Amino acid sequence: MEKFKNENIGINEVEAEELAGHIGEVVRLHGSIYKIRKMKSFSFVLLRTKRDVVQCVTSKDLEIPMEESCVILSAKVVEDNRSRVGYELQIETIEVLSSPQEIAPIVINQKIVDTSIENLLDFRPITLRNEKERAIFKLQEGICRAFREFLYRENFTEIHTPKIVQSGAEGGANIFKLDYFGQEAYLAQSPQFYKLMMAGVFERVFEIAPVFRAEKHDTSRHLNEYTSVDFEMGFISSFREIMEMETAMLQYTMKYLAENYEKELTLLNLTLPVIEKIPSVTFREAKVKVAEAYKRTVKDWEDFEPEEEKLLSALILQETGSEFVFVTHYPSEKRPFYAMENKDNPNETESFDLLFRGLEITTGGQRIHDYQEQVAKMQRKGMNVQLFESYLMMHKHGMPPHGGLGLGLERFTARLLGYENVRYTTLFPRDIKRLVP
Amino acid sequence: MEKFKNENIGINEVEAEELAGHIGEVVRLHGSIYKIRKMKSFSFVLLRTKRDVVQCVTSKDLEIPMEESCVILSAKVVEDNRSRVGYELQIETIEVLSSPQEIAPIVINQKIVDTSIENLLDFRPITLRNEKERAIFKLQEGICRAFREFLYRENFTEIHTPKIVQSGAEGGANIFKLDYFGQEAYLAQSPQFYKLMMAGVFERVFEIAPVFRAEKHDTSRHLNEYTSVDFEMGFISSFREIMEMETAMLQYTMKYLAENYEKELTLLNLTLPVIEKIPSVTFREAKVKVAEAYKRTVKDWEDFEPEEEKLLSALILQETGSEFVFVTHYPSEKRPFYAMENKDNPNETESFDLLFRGLEITTGGQRIHDYQEQVAKMQRKGMNVQLFESYLMMHKHGMPPHGGLGLGLERFTARLLGYENVRYTTLFPRDIKRLVP
Repeated sequence: MEKFKNENIGINEVEAEELAGHIGEVVRLHGSIYKIRKMKSFSFVLLRTKRDVVQCVTSKDLEIPMEESCVILSAKVVEDNRSRVGYELQIETIEVLSSPQEIAPIVINQKIVDTSIENLLDFRPITLRNEKERAIFKLQEGICRAFREFLYRENFTEIHTPKIVQSGAEGGANIFKLDYFGQEAYLAQSPQFYKLMMAGVFERVFEIAPVFRAEKHDTSRHLNEYTSVDFEMGFISSFREIMEMETAMLQYTMKYLAENYEKELTLLNLTLPVIEKIPSVTFREAKVKVAEAYKRTVKDWEDFEPEEEKLLSALILQETGSEFVFVTHYPSEKRPFYAMENKDNPNETESFDLLFRGLEITTGGQRIHDYQEQVAKMQRKGMNVQLFESYLMMHKHGMPPHGGLGLGLERFTARLLGYENVRYTTLFPRDIKRLVP
Repeated sequence: MEKFKNENIGINEVEAEELAGHIGEVVRLHGSIYKIRKMKSFSFVLLRTKRDVVQCVTSKDLEIPMEESCVILSAKVVEDNRSRVGYELQIETIEVLSSPQEIAPIVINQKIVDTSIENLLDFRPITLRNEKERAIFKLQEGICRAFREFLYRENFTEIHTPKIVQSGAEGGANIFKLDYFGQEAYLAQSPQFYKLMMAGVFERVFEIAPVFRAEKHDTSRHLNEYTSVDFEMGFISSFREIMEMETAMLQYTMKYLAENYEKELTLLNLTLPVIEKIPSVTFREAKVKVAEAYKRTVKDWEDFEPEEEKLLSALILQETGSEFVFVTHYPSEKRPFYAMENKDNPNETESFDLLFRGLEITTGGQRIHDYQEQVAKMQRKGMNVQLFESYLMMHKHGMPPHGGLGLGLERFTARLLGYENVRYTTLFPRDIKRLVP
């Protein structure tokens, strides 16, 4: 590819990452003026490039354009042992490509953006220019890359399923409605039906795409739109194979981030969790365990309270050293109509959640693949089977035993980085109060 | 990863792709019975696996479960020079994992699914099981993988932007409305505003995600939801750099498909186009060229008719041998408010479309980066600037010269495979009449 063209022929532009190979040379480098620090006889200029912030110095004679100006520098790369990277750039000329109209109303070039979360999000287009803020999303890219690379290796096929749908997969009230040429339609709460159908086609499929939940909860862990990492596997003999696949995917991801995103890990001061075998407890065991350890009374035998998830994670960490824990066999009452029930105990499903540092980040399980069994369960639940004709087509004409999971990308990123609020790890969050930017 | 577990210890399951390495051995292999062909003294059984259809033979003594049953075979891999792959599988046992309720109402195991497009799409969950049908979407996976790999190499960062938005980026009537907790919201027609903002953060960004267009046109090239491949680049000196980037991306993709998707290319009998330099004509030149060559009168100097795009592509192919052609400098009247105008002729924009075999598959161009210039253009267009405060934030606080493009994944796939109707290359199409499956 041709690089940025300029008048100054004979001096080639370099990427920030290549600078160490050009010591002693004059290079050209473009970016935004991130920060200017004036000293007595010279100035430090930090240049923000695609992935780096490069430290430069200038003599006091050179006029430096205002912060957030976009520039091309020509500069000499000089060895300097005091610098973290082993060199510094001595600016010779600055060519200005564009200038901001106004200085930003929020200071974005300190170590962190020191403001409220509302301000941080209201001014997202500029607060994301902060070195640490943007590193969060560079790392999130790494998580997606790792997931995809792992799933390709495991012979999964990537699919793109529709987000405008005729019926919700998860049921319940938290579904956005829209008018579709006079017909009522919905925004997909998950790619559930479609990934199941595609497990009948490619056996193993995955999708990383937006899903929509009209949740009215305004909590630190709910979003009304998020990125869902979904996979589905045919020919499983137990839902535990899905847990094994997820464990391997997370292990791969930690290794991948350590190898390819060191820059961001350093900037975010992040130590990646070590993932060996992930412990697994049943839902009932977990309930009892938490109640006993913390002298609590179980109020609800069908679901976890968020507080219980936190307490369980703490207990498991203490006992096993693992920051992850699988909880299996959720009650049938609270799982969707496609969830396979346990053969010995139909009140329990062949399902699991994965908790990471106190928060559920994944829901998964084995699905019913037999047509008669699926129809019977729908009837037991009082559903109108006829409305699900296109969903049931796959069962009618043969489906392998199958199961899969959905993982919330923003939640996972938040847990990994230690943020309590999932909005910190969402590029442009949508919640009950926020539709802008 | 642990493979599918079974009772028959000591005989490991293999992937279809590994069979050639097991000649002379008894292997276990799972999949769906795709097709049974009974001969006089034996039967052919085709087993559909993740990516292959494997030919097996059985003696007539063995009972074969009905087509679309999911099974585990144990079979001996026997060298056979008559077979295309050099071996065949002699089935020893068949373990049935699941059986269909009914035989499919449409024949799915012939070379093609021989039915109307309506049937093909109505029965998508099962017609996709056809070997050729599913190959289309395996190849589409390859296109996405190639795009992403290329863009990562070129230092683009992958982003996830919201699909529920407060204002449409492209304007016009073709936007889906929804009720967002009492507020009016829209489905994103493109990630335009967000990818621009992110070009101010990472310089180069991309996203592959669904977009929504409430087009009432019921044509062979329109979808109401499609997968848009978007990228945006900062620090460009001309929109031609975006064209160069796209050319390189397409070249990379053809090479990638040839190397990694040979199976599907063979099945689809597809010869990939050779992409060298892609010719480029201005919009006016193109209009004149087509009018002269085909003795047509130009009715509309502001837009192409679909027929003109076809004729132009034919002419360019004849003249240069290229199946792609860039058309540049579209009239300002028909381009959005963020399009940069030509300095010498403000009636023209610094923009382009890419036509591939007669159809527009990409729209791109340079954007206005200067705050004053953007505000002035919005005012000229009679827009309420105050409504775009969060969009204009990036310009106010400094943006590099930037530009980018959007490519329709399904259209591109359709053109590559030679389908007139884009629905053939859409997994579950959405059009004015179709919301199911």
